[in-house]
Amino acid sequence: MRIEEDCIGKLAVEDQALYGIHSLRAVHNFPISTERLHPLIIMSLVQIKQAAATVNQAAGTLSTTKAHAIKAACDELLQGQYADSFIVPAIQGGAGTSANMNVNEVVANLANRLTADADVQPNDDVNQSQSTNDTFPTAGKMALLQQLPGLLSALRDLLQVLGEQGEAYANTIKVGRTQLQDAVPTTYGRSFHAYQHLFKRDLDRVQAAGEHLQTVNLGGTAIGTGVNATPYYQQHVIPTLNDQTGLDLKVATDLIDATQNCDLLVEFSGALKTLAVDLSKFSNDLRLLASGPQAGLAELHLPAQQAGSSIMPGKVNPVIPEVVNQVCFEVIGHDTTVTMAAEAGQLELNAFEPIMFRDLLASEHELQQAVQTLIQNCLRHLTVKQDQCADEVDQSAITATVLTPYLGYMATTKLIKRALSQHQSVRRLLVAEHRLPTELVTKLFAPTNLTQPRQPQKQQA
Amino acid sequence: MRIEEDCIGKLAVEDQALYGIHSLRAVHNFPISTERLHPLIIMSLVQIKQAAATVNQAAGTLSTTKAHAIKAACDELLQGQYADSFIVPAIQGGAGTSANMNVNEVVANLANRLTADADVQPNDDVNQSQSTNDTFPTAGKMALLQQLPGLLSALRDLLQVLGEQGEAYANTIKVGRTQLQDAVPTTYGRSFHAYQHLFKRDLDRVQAAGEHLQTVNLGGTAIGTGVNATPYYQQHVIPTLNDQTGLDLKVATDLIDATQNCDLLVEFSGALKTLAVDLSKFSNDLRLLASGPQAGLAELHLPAQQAGSSIMPGKVNPVIPEVVNQVCFEVIGHDTTVTMAAEAGQLELNAFEPIMFRDLLASEHELQQAVQTLIQNCLRHLTVKQDQCADEVDQSAITATVLTPYLGYMATTKLIKRALSQHQSVRRLLVAEHRLPTELVTKLFAPTNLTQPRQPQKQQA
Amino acid sequence: MRIEEDCIGKLAVEDQALYGIHSLRAVHNFPISTERLHPLIIMSLVQIKQAAATVNQAAGTLSTTKAHAIKAACDELLQGQYADSFIVPAIQGGAGTSANMNVNEVVANLANRLTADADVQPNDDVNQSQSTNDTFPTAGKMALLQQLPGLLSALRDLLQVLGEQGEAYANTIKVGRTQLQDAVPTTYGRSFHAYQHLFKRDLDRVQAAGEHLQTVNLGGTAIGTGVNATPYYQQHVIPTLNDQTGLDLKVATDLIDATQNCDLLVEFSGALKTLAVDLSKFSNDLRLLASGPQAGLAELHLPAQQAGSSIMPGKVNPVIPEVVNQVCFEVIGHDTTVTMAAEAGQLELNAFEPIMFRDLLASEHELQQAVQTLIQNCLRHLTVKQDQCADEVDQSAITATVLTPYLGYMATTKLIKRALSQHQSVRRLLVAEHRLPTELVTKLFAPTNLTQPRQPQKQQA
Amino acid sequence: MRIEEDCIGKLAVEDQALYGIHSLRAVHNFPISTERLHPLIIMSLVQIKQAAATVNQAAGTLSTTKAHAIKAACDELLQGQYADSFIVPAIQGGAGTSANMNVNEVVANLANRLTADADVQPNDDVNQSQSTNDTFPTAGKMALLQQLPGLLSALRDLLQVLGEQGEAYANTIKVGRTQLQDAVPTTYGRSFHAYQHLFKRDLDRVQAAGEHLQTVNLGGTAIGTGVNATPYYQQHVIPTLNDQTGLDLKVATDLIDATQNCDLLVEFSGALKTLAVDLSKFSNDLRLLASGPQAGLAELHLPAQQAGSSIMPGKVNPVIPEVVNQVCFEVIGHDTTVTMAAEAGQLELNAFEPIMFRDLLASEHELQQAVQTLIQNCLRHLTVKQDQCADEVDQSAITATVLTPYLGYMATTKLIKRALSQHQSVRRLLVAEHRLPTELVTKLFAPTNLTQPRQPQKQQA
Repeated sequence: MRIEEDCIGKLAVEDQALYGIHSLRAVHNFPISTERLHPLIIMSLVQIKQAAATVNQAAGTLSTTKAHAIKAACDELLQGQYADSFIVPAIQGGAGTSANMNVNEVVANLANRLTADADVQPNDDVNQSQSTNDTFPTAGKMALLQQLPGLLSALRDLLQVLGEQGEAYANTIKVGRTQLQDAVPTTYGRSFHAYQHLFKRDLDRVQAAGEHLQTVNLGGTAIGTGVNATPYYQQHVIPTLNDQTGLDLKVATDLIDATQNCDLLVEFSGALKTLAVDLSKFSNDLRLLASGPQAGLAELHLPAQQAGSSIMPGKVNPVIPEVVNQVCFEVIGHDTTVTMAAEAGQLELNAFEPIMFRDLLASEHELQQAVQTLIQNCLRHLTVKQDQCADEVDQSAITATVLTPYLGYMATTKLIKRALSQHQSVRRLLVAEHRLPTELVTKLFAPTNLTQPRQPQKQQA
Repeated sequence: MRIEEDCIGKLAVEDQALYGIHSLRAVHNFPISTERLHPLIIMSLVQIKQAAATVNQAAGTLSTTKAHAIKAACDELLQGQYADSFIVPAIQGGAGTSANMNVNEVVANLANRLTADADVQPNDDVNQSQSTNDTFPTAGKMALLQQLPGLLSALRDLLQVLGEQGEAYANTIKVGRTQLQDAVPTTYGRSFHAYQHLFKRDLDRVQAAGEHLQTVNLGGTAIGTGVNATPYYQQHVIPTLNDQTGLDLKVATDLIDATQNCDLLVEFSGALKTLAVDLSKFSNDLRLLASGPQAGLAELHLPAQQAGSSIMPGKVNPVIPEVVNQVCFEVIGHDTTVTMAAEAGQLELNAFEPIMFRDLLASEHELQQAVQTLIQNCLRHLTVKQDQCADEVDQSAITATVLTPYLGYMATTKLIKRALSQHQSVRRLLVAEHRLPTELVTKLFAPTNLTQPRQPQKQQA
Repeated sequence: MRIEEDCIGKLAVEDQALYGIHSLRAVHNFPISTERLHPLIIMSLVQIKQAAATVNQAAGTLSTTKAHAIKAACDELLQGQYADSFIVPAIQGGAGTSANMNVNEVVANLANRLTADADVQPNDDVNQSQSTNDTFPTAGKMALLQQLPGLLSALRDLLQVLGEQGEAYANTIKVGRTQLQDAVPTTYGRSFHAYQHLFKRDLDRVQAAGEHLQTVNLGGTAIGTGVNATPYYQQHVIPTLNDQTGLDLKVATDLIDATQNCDLLVEFSGALKTLAVDLSKFSNDLRLLASGPQAGLAELHLPAQQAGSSIMPGKVNPVIPEVVNQVCFEVIGHDTTVTMAAEAGQLELNAFEPIMFRDLLASEHELQQAVQTLIQNCLRHLTVKQDQCADEVDQSAITATVLTPYLGYMATTKLIKRALSQHQSVRRLLVAEHRLPTELVTKLFAPTNLTQPRQPQKQQA
Repeated sequence: MRIEEDCIGKLAVEDQALYGIHSLRAVHNFPISTERLHPLIIMSLVQIKQAAATVNQAAGTLSTTKAHAIKAACDELLQGQYADSFIVPAIQGGAGTSANMNVNEVVANLANRLTADADVQPNDDVNQSQSTNDTFPTAGKMALLQQLPGLLSALRDLLQVLGEQGEAYANTIKVGRTQLQDAVPTTYGRSFHAYQHLFKRDLDRVQAAGEHLQTVNLGGTAIGTGVNATPYYQQHVIPTLNDQTGLDLKVATDLIDATQNCDLLVEFSGALKTLAVDLSKFSNDLRLLASGPQAGLAELHLPAQQAGSSIMPGKVNPVIPEVVNQVCFEVIGHDTTVTMAAEAGQLELNAFEPIMFRDLLASEHELQQAVQTLIQNCLRHLTVKQDQCADEVDQSAITATVLTPYLGYMATTKLIKRALSQHQSVRRLLVAEHRLPTELVTKLFAPTNLTQPRQPQKQQA
């Protein structure tokens, strides 16, 4: 064990450990759960350290030796080595200081281990020109951005499968339902396309909110004034970081604002929440349309994925939509957490960024996984029971809606009531009662007429 | 009393009443509160009826006599007459059907009263080519859009007053605070500008979400298939409505989607919620910075607006930010309601639009009013206690942060601890201990240096 | 106009007005909506003023003349007179000070109008021994308590109608559904009784949380120390108030705690929210079971309450459950608001009580009204389509679950798959395949056996 | 690899694996995150299996050999062996079926491995008399109950430390603050006791909601009818389980109700949320009162736990309250998730129990840990700066409130305004202006008088 010291006092650290006293204090202080800080945040911090070393060296505020040592250490860490050195918990006080300190310590110790006599100091060198207050939120956004393409790609796959199913069932007529009551008919093709359009908006919405996350406060240091950073550093650190990572980060126009406000996180959470609302509604619809097999709507057949019951043999449940629902509820809950944490920010900083990034990273990833399992284990192999759908339309009394331009609302109402109480088809009743010419009735009740705007019936003035 | 009949049975209606049986049933069915449907929704429905009559006449599906009669009736209603005829409750089941029926009945009855022998029927004529499922959500969005400029204008006023205060206090140095602990200094000018930039994003966000609300499903009729509307009507109703109202509505590309999904409402609610989060954080900051007058931070002086206590004489409280906070909490609560209502939509329709529009209209208006009272009764007359702010910076030990490029993090840490424990100024201690040249110390602690990036200190390689 | 003055300055007040300058300032400061403070809070404050006058007189700190004058004024106000004098908005800053001031002013002015030479002062006399900080939350709780019996009574009516329906359909067998898939059968009697038991817990929960609201901080004055109240007053004011009102208020053991914490409101909100969750689930079930009339589950017939569509004739929708759903979403949204407002309390007071009481009073009342309309306009006249339910059970393959003790899980699984794919009844297949004796099969598939624990089948060791 | 088969088809399973095909399907179907089902739920399921085997044997429906084999396997599992066999994800569709199946499979395979020729079947034997629908929610509640004492004990420790601090600072006078403005004084003793009383209510609330969780639906099997369970089993399984575990579970009176409704989970979540609201408010207060060290309220000294900044040397932040705040926000978010999941239950079952138990177990544990670190790393070593507190009271103008019974509200108001604008002490001004006898002034401003009810000043009638 080696003894380290900070402004609080001394602490023994494992000899081999690359982390130091600040990291260890966090472990003692925040024993909330066993979950450690998300690796994507850690790696983003390492990338920031590397970019900063490059820029500080160029600015002349960091020696070449130290810069090289730091960059070499970062290289190793970015390859995934020493991942166990990042010990700070996901849920932590201190606005991310422990996370930043952990990375500073590991980089410095590894730099010194790799490069003799570099004498790299965690705060003076690795953290030079930086503060937790700009590195941590920047790293958090980088992590979200690095995970985002996976979600967007899953959503694009979703659009595609919905489009394909829309084509496959373009002419499959079905009873529409409003307020869970039979309504005028539509087709399954239109239904799938409607979901496709919905999730296209979600894709656009998440993407747009994601682009806003590219605006970061790196260079603002402690509170956005840039104190202790050089103007050279401020100008070059983000371009350097972009070169390194392939991201397209932009510096905020007002660094004070960007350091203290978390509205971009609330906005992003709102976009994820809206997606969750839509996915949950879609899952609800799938489960409802697949209800049965005998005493339900039974219009859809979802692929059987697992035995549905430990007691009822042969039962198969819509387990994939069900897990999607639950992910959606979790994401909506996370939105509440993000909302409260953002609102609780005070003055020059929001101290509650760790929980916001934790929950947003979880939401983003879980949504991606949920969409993927929905596509692969449900939508791709879903089939529509076309005969049953057609029969239902055929027998539906509410299709008589197309008669109102001819008979009027009140007379049609009575006709429908009569048909329902006599368990008769409206069409047959119409013909029997000689209300309209058989030919017109046939034309009116043709599937294409039932599901489209009508040709106008000229009105006498 | 006159007797009217619907598919349920008969009901007596006041002889004078312009409303009819459908409206009255809603009053009996939904006695939830005394709040009636928002007048802006009613007026938007009337405008839709007027536009529909114009277009249906041109399409040849409505006689000229009836069309004129309907339009004349709508004209009177749009001038605010017979407002008492709109009796349906704000919180109603039926997906807005009662609202649409109420307007249909009032327009028809008034048309028949104004124009002899027009024989206008509420469903066949006034509601021709329409369904509640397209008119109600369109009217709800129109109402939100008509109310929106007031909110946007209030936000622009907010930006202006924050800009002015930013100018006024551009050079007023103050202690920064992160995690409620003293941090490196900034200026009140920067603080006000930071809020200004924050609310500029909110303005943009609300405006963008508002523009999305311009996409409506009018013409889709029952479930978006356009059943019972003519193609001519579908093409012309929205342009006609735009001409009438000056709005810039657009028809949705997929009417099935637009009829069943409420994601645009969730998105708009999310934008209002983000604004609420930001306004609440701002209000919290104002209250904190104005705390005192003696045992608080007491940096800001908020204009006294009313006696603060019924028992403690002379007490003045930050009542304006307090009411803003509460409006924000209400808006965030409404977002929960909108989220749940949107998620609960099923199949071809969301039956819960009435509560969504009710809460969104309330949120939108209350935010506008809250921002306005914040500007007029607080921000415009707020002053900063500049001397106190300067004194605090002068005595602040944490300003020693600027020394770290010279002394290093650890040595500076010890210096600050020493200064704090001896109740000494860091600056004096530095000079006394001959750690740095007096001239350099003076330069380092100059306000401009404390609040800006540093000129680089060349490092020996 | 008369001129009044407070610590801010002068203001003109209508000559006739019973309210004064403090009330008027609130109207100017809080123009959030047109909603005024809830009359039940106002009346509760008046009752507090009356009780305080009685006790202060007995304590010897208020002259008999003044006490009588105050009490006479309160009597008139409690009879509902001068209700227009209470002008302060529902959403107000200042922690309720404006509300308390409004009542102080109106009582004082009315007292002086009714009793010559009483010279009653609003703060020194009407508000004697009181602070907004104890009177306002006490009045808010009194308002909630006065409204509570209506909700509890509605819930008791709900239990009764559910019990009656449970009896009526005690033997109506129906398909059970888990995860929306057919499951082993149950009866509608059991279903109604299950809801009854659920809402019995809600009744108990709301009642218990309501009883906790009886604990008030009256007597604590400004921050709970009781400063400026006499010990005599502290001892007698609540018993006097209870005598006056018939309530059963209790003084909090720790007045500091009771003045600064709003956990009892969060708890009460939580109880209302749980009720809302349960009512919403119940409404969802009703709508689902009544779906159809042709292409849905169509097991329940809900009474038709109004025409369901402006375009689709004869359509009838479950409008009553729909309005209940929306009230539930609103209540759940209010819970978010109450949560945030309670969390935002600081140090010796929570300044956000006005929005909490506003939303809780709305939730409480709207739930009562929703339950009542659900009972009267839906549950009381709901009928079950018994034949359809019996047929569904008869054809259900999943009833084969009762075979597993005989055939085992795997063999039964295969039997069910075979039956479903051959559109055959399991029972017939069983007999045809001679798997089990016909007599046993008949016994096993008897309704009572399908819906109850089995008689044990002895297992050979 | 061995090949297993279910109603879907065949799947290869690792030869060594104790789990089987049903478990593996869940892994494929629900790849949402890497988090597995909570071990406490797994262990509770194992305990249920063991109890069921005992009872089924006694009922004569399970052979002695099988029963012994099952119980032996459970014994090993309960000792923590083969923990890796429980592979199903925490977030899963299927209402917990995969969890139950995983346990059935592992127990059966281990039983057969341990006991030759036992031929234990997972569904027919291990799951005998059970369904996921009764075992899973019962196990979830057992897990919550097993974790609960830790939280309750942490809360009791919190009460104790608050009591101790209350004693330690019983006479430390301090300025009260309402709405963040100076108010009449109190003592830190009273403050700590107020928090103590608050958390006592939380303790009671959580405990009471926890006791309700003891009511379970075990014995109801599939939907609560108890189909396939014997009456003997129903009577004996819960007592047997209680004997085994030391828990005090009770069978629900209405098993149908208990199987479909999750109100007890919503209620428990509500109790945890209320605790979170209170803990968050307390943490906010601590951070505010400890703000500084120079430009803040600086009344409290929180123990320094770690260096507060990577850039600002010597900065120490309130990291422990900050992490508590974040846990509270997370718990409040979980409450949203639980609310939505509970509301989404349909008909005879709520399919979303997995996410509810996941979030509740997380909330319960994180709250326990948060309270513990708050006690150990903050409250226990917190000190009050008594001199500073006393000075603030001494200079406070608002203490003049005690003069109103002598001077009246208006005159006192003016006196305070004068004192504040002249930066004079009210007391000195009073004496200088000869408004009250010096002796009386001294008496009135004595700490005990400032913080208590007054002795009555007789009023002339």
